[in-house]
Amino acid sequence: MSSLTQVSESDAPPGARELLLQTASDIMRDGDIVDISLSELSLRSGLNSALVKYYFGNKAGLMKALLDRDMADIVHAVDALLSKDWDPEARLRHHIGAVVDTYFKTPYLNRLLMRLVRESDPDEAHRIADSYLSPLSQAYDKLIKDGIDQGVFRDVDPQLFYFTTTGACDRFFSSRLVLKHCYDTESLTEELRDRYREHCIDFIMAGILAQR
Amino acid sequence: MSSLTQVSESDAPPGARELLLQTASDIMRDGDIVDISLSELSLRSGLNSALVKYYFGNKAGLMKALLDRDMADIVHAVDALLSKDWDPEARLRHHIGAVVDTYFKTPYLNRLLMRLVRESDPDEAHRIADSYLSPLSQAYDKLIKDGIDQGVFRDVDPQLFYFTTTGACDRFFSSRLVLKHCYDTESLTEELRDRYREHCIDFIMAGILAQR
Repeated sequence: MSSLTQVSESDAPPGARELLLQTASDIMRDGDIVDISLSELSLRSGLNSALVKYYFGNKAGLMKALLDRDMADIVHAVDALLSKDWDPEARLRHHIGAVVDTYFKTPYLNRLLMRLVRESDPDEAHRIADSYLSPLSQAYDKLIKDGIDQGVFRDVDPQLFYFTTTGACDRFFSSRLVLKHCYDTESLTEELRDRYREHCIDFIMAGILAQR
Repeated sequence: MSSLTQVSESDAPPGARELLLQTASDIMRDGDIVDISLSELSLRSGLNSALVKYYFGNKAGLMKALLDRDMADIVHAVDALLSKDWDPEARLRHHIGAVVDTYFKTPYLNRLLMRLVRESDPDEAHRIADSYLSPLSQAYDKLIKDGIDQGVFRDVDPQLFYFTTTGACDRFFSSRLVLKHCYDTESLTEELRDRYREHCIDFIMAGILAQR
């Protein structure tokens, strides 16, 4: 047996699983990449990289667990939003801000999602689609159709709106190298996030609100 | 010397360079990926893969030449648009349609751009930024500011608008796997492109036009 299999529950400090996931997230965010090296993960987390095998089986399992962590948060947040007794405009404004905040925190997320759907076997790809893509698709249906029915939103296709909105909100954070070369800044500061959030909310709401 | 160095000009059929570039483009588009294998390139183009070395030095050189081909087309088209005596609204409508058409034809383009900026040495990264990113940034400045000055557009930040617009137009075509799992279609048909083009033009123009 290799040393990688020697780790047992007693070797795993409390919170080690969550720390591995968060460190992997930090590495991908900082490097603007969708991959990690186990040695960097070990160095930055201060944890034995054998714990990756213990908790996740291998690096691919860690990536999958990170996708599950990040996407489950989104689906829960959208469910919670739809259960609120808010009007369609307030809901959508809140949602757009949340999408921007999500891509600020996890700029790798869409690329990770595409990569895991592509590289997974059909069963796992279906699980990802059923767990995350379909619920979000249904949520957009409700989010937008409620507004159209009440005459607050123009008659836009909710599914196409999903692509334009998430693409618009994501682009800023997944094009870090454009920022570096055109804006002479490489870091995604909270100030930049706030400016982009305001721009996205203003712009997307203007695009969908019925003229009154 | 390996056999890869044996190719000379006389071995290269007319149009071979362009055919290699177009075949690489087709492979990345069809596979929704940002890489090629030289054996597939040779098989699909019917050309000896040693020609890659002859024309481009290596695969990285081929990728760089493909980026140059695709991005130069865009910069020329935007320059031509700005030199036309059209009003700001007509210009922007035309441009949004062109962005959608570009990502339909070359859905890998933004990912290729980011990859080459990331993987190139600083001089080459600067060349890419100076040749393509800066001219587009300046073009957006003019495209949007003309409209704001004439009272046709709301007062939006041209640079942030660049991110929202290209992100919105690109998303549909760079998320093919979402289409596959949620829409039960994997192919980017012209009918889907036309629907998405219409949606993007309608939605983005509504977002930027001053209410009259």
